[in-house]
Formats: sequence, C-alpha cells, structure tokens
Amino acid sequence: MRSTASPSLPSEVQALEPAAQYEELAHRARDAARKLAEVSSAAKNEWLLRSVNGLRSHEAEILEANARDVAQAEADGLAPAQIDRLRLDSNRLATMAAGLREVAALPDPVGRVLERSIRPNGLEVQKVSVPLGVILFIYESRPNVTADAAALCVKSGNALILRGGKEALQSNRAVHAVLQEALLPSGLPADALQLVATPDRSAVGHLLRLEGLIDLVIPRGGVGLIRRVAAEARMPVLKHYQGICHVYVDRAADLDMACRIIVNAKCQRPGVCNAAECLLVHQEAASAFLPVAAAQLRARGVEIRGCAATQRLLPEVRPATDEDYRTEYLDLILSVKVVDDLEAAVAHINRFGSGHTDAILTEDQSAARRFTTAVDSAAVMVNASTRFHDGFEFGLGAEIGISTDKMHARGPCGLRELCSYKYVVFGNGQVRS
Amino acid sequence: MRSTASPSLPSEVQALEPAAQYEELAHRARDAARKLAEVSSAAKNEWLLRSVNGLRSHEAEILEANARDVAQAEADGLAPAQIDRLRLDSNRLATMAAGLREVAALPDPVGRVLERSIRPNGLEVQKVSVPLGVILFIYESRPNVTADAAALCVKSGNALILRGGKEALQSNRAVHAVLQEALLPSGLPADALQLVATPDRSAVGHLLRLEGLIDLVIPRGGVGLIRRVAAEARMPVLKHYQGICHVYVDRAADLDMACRIIVNAKCQRPGVCNAAECLLVHQEAASAFLPVAAAQLRARGVEIRGCAATQRLLPEVRPATDEDYRTEYLDLILSVKVVDDLEAAVAHINRFGSGHTDAILTEDQSAARRFTTAVDSAAVMVNASTRFHDGFEFGLGAEIGISTDKMHARGPCGLRELCSYKYVVFGNGQVRS
Repeated sequence: MRSTASPSLPSEVQALEPAAQYEELAHRARDAARKLAEVSSAAKNEWLLRSVNGLRSHEAEILEANARDVAQAEADGLAPAQIDRLRLDSNRLATMAAGLREVAALPDPVGRVLERSIRPNGLEVQKVSVPLGVILFIYESRPNVTADAAALCVKSGNALILRGGKEALQSNRAVHAVLQEALLPSGLPADALQLVATPDRSAVGHLLRLEGLIDLVIPRGGVGLIRRVAAEARMPVLKHYQGICHVYVDRAADLDMACRIIVNAKCQRPGVCNAAECLLVHQEAASAFLPVAAAQLRARGVEIRGCAATQRLLPEVRPATDEDYRTEYLDLILSVKVVDDLEAAVAHINRFGSGHTDAILTEDQSAARRFTTAVDSAAVMVNASTRFHDGFEFGLGAEIGISTDKMHARGPCGLRELCSYKYVVFGNGQVRS
Repeated sequence: MRSTASPSLPSEVQALEPAAQYEELAHRARDAARKLAEVSSAAKNEWLLRSVNGLRSHEAEILEANARDVAQAEADGLAPAQIDRLRLDSNRLATMAAGLREVAALPDPVGRVLERSIRPNGLEVQKVSVPLGVILFIYESRPNVTADAAALCVKSGNALILRGGKEALQSNRAVHAVLQEALLPSGLPADALQLVATPDRSAVGHLLRLEGLIDLVIPRGGVGLIRRVAAEARMPVLKHYQGICHVYVDRAADLDMACRIIVNAKCQRPGVCNAAECLLVHQEAASAFLPVAAAQLRARGVEIRGCAATQRLLPEVRPATDEDYRTEYLDLILSVKVVDDLEAAVAHINRFGSGHTDAILTEDQSAARRFTTAVDSAAVMVNASTRFHDGFEFGLGAEIGISTDKMHARGPCGLRELCSYKYVVFGNGQVRS
C-alpha cells in the first residue's frame, strides 16, 4: 500500500506518488494562506474559542488516543521522562485550552501600519504587516505543542503544516482533528491546518524541498533534528540549536544577589534552553563568592565542574574541559570558570556560548554597558536570571520558539515575528522623472 | 603559483590552500565586525568623508585602472551596454562620492532602542538594533556599486567582503584601496572592508560555505548569478530574482492618468527591476484605453505583445504567450492582457509575477483595497508608477537592493534592514518563580 501523507487529503491525491502528495498538500496550504491573509480577527478568535470547546467535548477521544501512544512508548522502552512529556491528562488538556484562550486575547498582528510617511511628491507610503504564508512546523514528542503552534500560526494569518514525532502520532491526530473541525464553521479555510500523519520517515525530506510553496520551517526538538532541518531545508528556518547560557559574576557584583540568581538560573528548571550551563566569576570575586555559591548549588544537587582556579577554591570539584564549556547539560551540572576580567568573560562567552542568553551581575554601570554591547547573544541580562528570556516574560505573549539567528527575528518569536510586511503606496497619478 | 584570495592578506596566509585563505579572510571580517559594532557614528562618518576625499585625490589612478578594464572588455568583445556600465569618468566618480556623502548624512541605524517596556516584576526589557555581522556582497560589472555597498554596510556596523565581477577587477581594486586606506585613520578596523580580488572562479563557492563566519550574502546581478548563490549559500541570502511588474488598469481608472503611468512605468528606464513588463486591462476599459495607450507607447518605441482580446483591438500586435508573461524583458517590450475583472488581474499577478512591484490604477476605493490586500508583492502601488519602488523614493535613503523574500526584510533594503536586534534586560536581582 502506498503511504499517505495526510488522511485529510482526498483519496485521488492519496493515490499519487509521495512527492506529488506533499506538493499537493503544500499547494492546498498556499491556497488556504491566501484566504487566511484576509480573514478578520473575529473569525480567527472564533476558531480559537471553538477549539477550546472542542478540546473539552472531545476530551475522552483525545485521552484515549494518547493512552495508545503512551502504551506503545512503554512497549518500545522509552525513558520515563520522555513518556511523561508524551502523556496527556485532564489538567494538561485544560492548560492546552488556556493557551488557546490566551492567544485569542492577544492583538491581531496582521494589517498593522508599521510606518507611514507622505513623500515630498505626495505619495503616501505605508509599511503594513502581512502573514508570512505557509509555515511547516516540525516537532518532537509533546502533543500540547500541536495546539500551541496552530494557535500562533493561524492567528498570525499563516497556513500551517504540522509534522509531529511518531511517538505522539495518535495524540496529534486527535488534537488536530478537533482544531481542524473548528475551521470551516468559523469561516476559515479547512486547509489552514494540515497534519502530516504518516509514520513514513521520508515525509520531512519531501517537504523541505518545497521552496516557493512553504515560506518558513520551524523545527523544535533536539539538536540533531534541528541540524538536519537546517541542512536540508531549501527555505528559511527559524531556530536555535542550543542554549549554552552564562552567568558572569563581576568584580562589582552584589554577591548575595549573585547567589540567588545563579541558583535560580541553574536549578529552577534545568531542562530548558534558558537555564544557565556555565558560571564565570571575576578573579577578585572568586574567593568570597564561589564557596558560598557552591554550597547553595550543591544543596540543590548540582554537580560542579571547574577550571584550575575553581578547583583551588573548591578542592573536591572535578575539572571542566573545553568539552564541558561547549555542552548544554540540560541537567543539574554546572561548569565554572574564574576569569581575569570582564573582557575575558566576554571572550569566553562569544567563543563557547550559543548566542542564546547571557547575564552579567554587577553594580558597575560601565561594566554592564560593556557586557551588553560586546556579548553577541539574542538576550543579554543585567542583574537578572537567564530564565527570563521568554516571550511571556518579555511581554510578547505566547511564543513559538526562540531564535538565535540574526536575520528576521531574534529572541522570542511570537505573533508579530510570524509576520512579514509589504509596502502599500497611494498616489494620485505620480510618475517618476 | 597558488591563487590569492586577497592582496591585503599577509603573505603567510596567501601561501595557504584557497579554502584556508577564505576562511582566514572571513575570520578577519568576523573580528572586524565585533569592533565595528561598537564604533561611534562620528568615526563611521569620518571614514565616509575621508573616502570622498580619497576618491578625489586618487581620481587619476582609479580612471587609469578603469581604462585597463574597459580595454580588456573591448578586446573580449563585450556588448556596448556592458562596457558603458563598466566605464568610469569624472562625473561618475563625483556621483560615487556624492553617494558616500549621502550615507554619512543618514542617521546611524545601530543602537536604536526599538522597543522598551517595564515588566510587572520590574525588569526593563529593551529591544536594541545591532549590526548583522559579516556581509558578503557579490555583484557584477558596475564598479560604482563597490563604494555604495561599502558605505551602507560599514555605516550599519557590518564588516564587508566584496566580490565583484572579473570585468571590473582593476577598477574595484582601485576603489577598494581608497576606501580601505581611510579605515584606520578614522579609527575603524582595517579588515572591515576586504576585496576578493582574484579571477579564480572557485572563490564564491568557498565563501558560500562559510556559515557561522558570514551572516548574510547579498548577490546583485543577473538571475543566473542570484540562483547560483541562493542554491549554494549555507547562510541567508537577501535577494530578488526578477522584477516582473504589472500595471492593472481597472474599470474605474482615470484613463488619462493611466496612460501617463503606463508610459512612465514602461519607458522611463526600461532596464531596471521596477519597470513594468505587463499591462493588465479590465475588459470594460479596454476599448477606450488600449488604442490610446498603445499609440503613446509605440511613439516611444515600445513593442506590444497581446492576448487575443488585445489583438482584436490592436490588430497589428503579435500574440503574447505564457512565456511572455513570465519574462522580465528589461527592454522596450510590453505584454498586454485584457482581464475579466479585478480578481482575474490579481490571479494573473500572483501566478506570473515575481512578487516585486504591482500597481492598480483606479478611482474605486474598494477595488484599491482589494488589490493591495490580495496581491502578494513587496510593494503594491495605487495610482502611481511602479518606478517609485526604491529606497530613496520610500524615504529610507540609499538602498543595497530590493528584497522579494518575506523573511527579515521585504522591499527596499537600506541601513536599517542591514541590522538585527538583541534584547537587553535590566533587573535588580529578579529570579523566576
């Protein structure tokens, strides 16, 4: 039997070669995107609220589908942490629904006049926000991401092609069915939201070739997935590979504050991209700071790996290698390095960091200024935990991810970052001389 | 003898394998970019004005180098139009210098606080513009582009690697030498501006692999060059392939205005990307409009190719094929199609256009609104010539090119579009709970 890109494609399309099926699927997304670009905010919000109701009324089916995924994952011997990420329950479904309601409450990012000027010849030049078009979202096993991504992409007027992990296939199908069912009654095109629901591993390869039909790919998952997508995609990719985030304790730091912040940045949620992985300490602060900080970190189960100067102050720590400094532990492990001065901290971060989030803790204004200018990362924090690098915390509302690229969008990507713009120019007969 | 990537590299680098030479060149650009990001506006403007003086004091050498390029081009049998584009004289050098002065007068795009908010927990979140980093600019034979690109990239704090066409090699070397000589005395890093001055055709291939070192490639030239760069580049590309620009004369158009605009859009400078290539006419306007417009266009030497309905009104025109509708003539040729209505015009443009510039001529507000929303192009004009799609005309100042992509920047790309941003967050000890 030929593999089927998506069960929502008509049977005559399902009979085609896989490459042709994906192309047809993308053409449908492109057509839907043109319609979506002109849909009112009211219709998009109606769809979000219908979906909230749908998640409630279809709760039993969704949990039943999820139970099948979980059973399969257990049979396949997945790690307990992975199975936990996969599992849905009433609470998690309620959180999913709350996310949809939050996106409904956010302002529509489409059709905003970003700039407007009247030129000397009388032309009125407007720069107006418009959707990007078609977005391909590739993600690993958390099924709640299906709803989050759909809400953000459709609210920003983009058609979405969803490609989730095979572990969550049944769950994603069930959630997608609810969201898709709400499209037409709300006046949105049915192809605004398509799920690639085949276990066929060649699906992603087919889709990544469809430049011209797909405007943007957003991969979310491990570094391996993201590298593969970045290498194969013929269209732009919105991504970050890793969050190797640093906290630098300056000579002029408030050391009590510094303890609170490094403990928070490392321990509050060690498995996420904006958790700290490396602590840099100015040599003049090291002997007063490191023993106290280390005691607090160890009390929370953190393993410390340090440079030679760190080991002199904390004799029991094992040495940190360059490999450590390049590692995103995502775990209760912290590398520590004593640096000569601020410039050495900046150099270390720009060399070993991932351009994600880095913090300086200092009471010295000029040190803060030098650090924020010289550190080439998406977010640079002064006297605050790296954990604040987040769309909600920055006031953007929900985010689809964080970008460490410099083109298009950097940092948290919310509704506005899922938009492009066009110039609309009004004249009364102007010609160029 | 081993080929040399750039004469400004030290001799021990010139002795390396080509791939290693290009990597070293890009590393130097990366180091220069870090310094440039912190250079004051005053220093960048000083460099621009020193370069203006340099172009004057080195005029004889530049023109002598250019004469060698022109003589070679003539010997190689290049077309007169190509040789004209290559040729420099006192006037063209003065225009080049005036371009540098104009960029000096523009505001610095770096370090602007684009957004600022105080979060409920007291964090101050700033979104601040920063340079992109290292830009590779690949262009064909016009040597004046060397100075234009250098001015825009360096003023926006980016290090630039220039790769011009081999026809202009001597001219580009001479202009580059003047611009580079002015860097150090102005306090800018010498590697801010490097010219790849080898006829070796593999240079571009080497450079396009240097993701991580080069942040952006801007190709400027024919479609062939741009396609090659887009296919090979591992980093983002700022580009437009073609300008297949449409003028749509609506049923409710002012036909006198429409004549003036199509004549201007087609004839004022037919060889540029924002010149019109196709005229679409509402069927109800065709019989009143086309004979008058055609007479005016023909009086200016324009050849018309038309659909069947056009041919009925203008019996002597030859038929337009789908191939015509897909062609950027860059010449005094115009394809013409009579359409049933506005929707047919929109469909034609979205199918055959290049997403560059399209105009509607109408007195009907709702038709204008529908057209500007539905046409998916970088610039959409109402009652104005397509020729206005330009950085100067839109008030951005000088531009490095026009983008038809939707990511990052769309339309004219000036100083601000050569920047990214970062988030800078100021706290007083906030931790996340």
